[in-house]
Amino acid sequence: MRIAIDAMGGDHAPAAQVEGALLAAAEWSDTTVVLVGDSARIEPLLQGRKPANVEVRHASEIIEAEDEPVKAVRRKKDASMVIAGRMVKDREVDAMISAGNTGALMTTGLLVVGRIKGIERPALAPMLPSLDGEGVLALDLGANMDATPEQLVQYAIMGSIYRSKVHGLKEPRVGLLNVGTEAMKGNELTKAAYPLLEQAPVRFVGNIESRDILKKPCDVIVCDGFAGNIMLKSLEGAASVIFSVLKTEFTRTWYTKLAAAVVKKGIGQFRKKMDYNEHGAAPLLGVDGLVLKSHGSSNALAIKNAVRQARIAVSNELVSSIRVEISNGSE
Amino acid sequence: MRIAIDAMGGDHAPAAQVEGALLAAAEWSDTTVVLVGDSARIEPLLQGRKPANVEVRHASEIIEAEDEPVKAVRRKKDASMVIAGRMVKDREVDAMISAGNTGALMTTGLLVVGRIKGIERPALAPMLPSLDGEGVLALDLGANMDATPEQLVQYAIMGSIYRSKVHGLKEPRVGLLNVGTEAMKGNELTKAAYPLLEQAPVRFVGNIESRDILKKPCDVIVCDGFAGNIMLKSLEGAASVIFSVLKTEFTRTWYTKLAAAVVKKGIGQFRKKMDYNEHGAAPLLGVDGLVLKSHGSSNALAIKNAVRQARIAVSNELVSSIRVEISNGSE
Repeated sequence: MRIAIDAMGGDHAPAAQVEGALLAAAEWSDTTVVLVGDSARIEPLLQGRKPANVEVRHASEIIEAEDEPVKAVRRKKDASMVIAGRMVKDREVDAMISAGNTGALMTTGLLVVGRIKGIERPALAPMLPSLDGEGVLALDLGANMDATPEQLVQYAIMGSIYRSKVHGLKEPRVGLLNVGTEAMKGNELTKAAYPLLEQAPVRFVGNIESRDILKKPCDVIVCDGFAGNIMLKSLEGAASVIFSVLKTEFTRTWYTKLAAAVVKKGIGQFRKKMDYNEHGAAPLLGVDGLVLKSHGSSNALAIKNAVRQARIAVSNELVSSIRVEISNGSE
Repeated sequence: MRIAIDAMGGDHAPAAQVEGALLAAAEWSDTTVVLVGDSARIEPLLQGRKPANVEVRHASEIIEAEDEPVKAVRRKKDASMVIAGRMVKDREVDAMISAGNTGALMTTGLLVVGRIKGIERPALAPMLPSLDGEGVLALDLGANMDATPEQLVQYAIMGSIYRSKVHGLKEPRVGLLNVGTEAMKGNELTKAAYPLLEQAPVRFVGNIESRDILKKPCDVIVCDGFAGNIMLKSLEGAASVIFSVLKTEFTRTWYTKLAAAVVKKGIGQFRKKMDYNEHGAAPLLGVDGLVLKSHGSSNALAIKNAVRQARIAVSNELVSSIRVEISNGSE
């Protein structure tokens, strides 16, 4: 198996990418990791410890975090991210991982790797945190702001296959993000999507309200990118504010500091569960090849974990399973 | 001034409504409170302590919480809520307050009271909590799931007037709920609304991300009812889960219980600030008369506070100010 890592994307690139590649190569000898990026910066980091299953593929350009996605992907044809995408397209590698510019990665997926035939819009699918630590796969979260009812059905199918192939869930429950649980609740989009989801080849469990999402009422939740983003950022915002207030309360006096000490561990564990950056890389589902988005702040361990995720997805033929299911539906 | 209270709507009706009316009548002698509802149930509650400025208007029907809104308003022509709406329409009272079925109240506003000329859709505008306890007026929160860019502009105008007339803010800052702060972020709706808001007669401060809303980046936030609901329910859901986990952590052992005791007060005050039910009644803006929605669980004090809100809005000519501003815009 061969997996490309965009060595130049992310807050700690290329060091974290190089270290992550080394960790992955050491753990999985059947996997070759290809570091794509500026060889003049990558090679020195590998000095004296480059195993046979780590390769470097030079790329002369870098897509920066602040680059305008579509323009950057079109113009920087020799960017590490774009080359990694081309390697996926040409089947030189089985998957690519990038911690770089999210918009540019989605554009790379769409324009360089290309869509699976029959897929209208690829979707970015991170895991939302849940109380039990397992999480809910949410799509779309940012690739497409608006969606059609038919696209939500495709998201449901792709998300189900991902949860089943990569996480081993038998019959993943699919929910529709909505403002109430009754079938006829919602806006034009969700009202039209509901009956389609009932007919779709997924285990549809109905409408899910955003207030319940942390309790994991489903394994996959589908929504347009706008609503999904509003949900995610609201959850994050509330958590961040509440924890900052707690901190203030706990540091008010010596005895509140003492109080803090005794509950610190439990609260810390909970915070970690709630941190969606802890939940691994997000697949870009619907592109004709495996593209994983690692968080921008990924360290070496996060990169290694993304390689693990890619390995499972590749071994279980995620992309071809989606291809087959979607072509069945369009016959 | 005359204010109608739907005495039959709400979890604690009619007792809370009757007590609230008595409190209000005692505080404001220039205000007559009209309790609309089943006189056979209201009169006994008033026995022996009915001041001159409390009246009862009999209504033989009740709209229940589980009634289908439009059907209920159309069929139950003698329902307390509908009669109160008709009294607003006929200028028999200056305002109405109900803690009953929200959908039915919005329908009453739309079909019984009627829209202000030029208003496309009335909007329900509760206060979202903010860290400083002052809150952000959000509209629309549930009256209309979908919205047009032009409707968002009307929400912005109505919300600004409300914050200025009722809360005394000089130049309320208006934000657009969005997925990023840059002007061109968002879905079709927000991208089209942004330039219109820049031209509108409001102090538009740009896009606001839902993660920042608790920090009060604006005084009024506009959004379609679907996105607004997702935001509100996500904030509530996160807060509820976090506080329930805290409770578990704090009750784990005797020393965590001790720890809880020392920070309890501070956290309790914060929770109260974050509870949007504490932020008073929500106006239904854009109807041609003052309609206020009190929370379903309102007690007597909440009802009295809603009367206070209604008095301020009436004294400061909220509805006619909106009427004038909207007719200016449509010339």
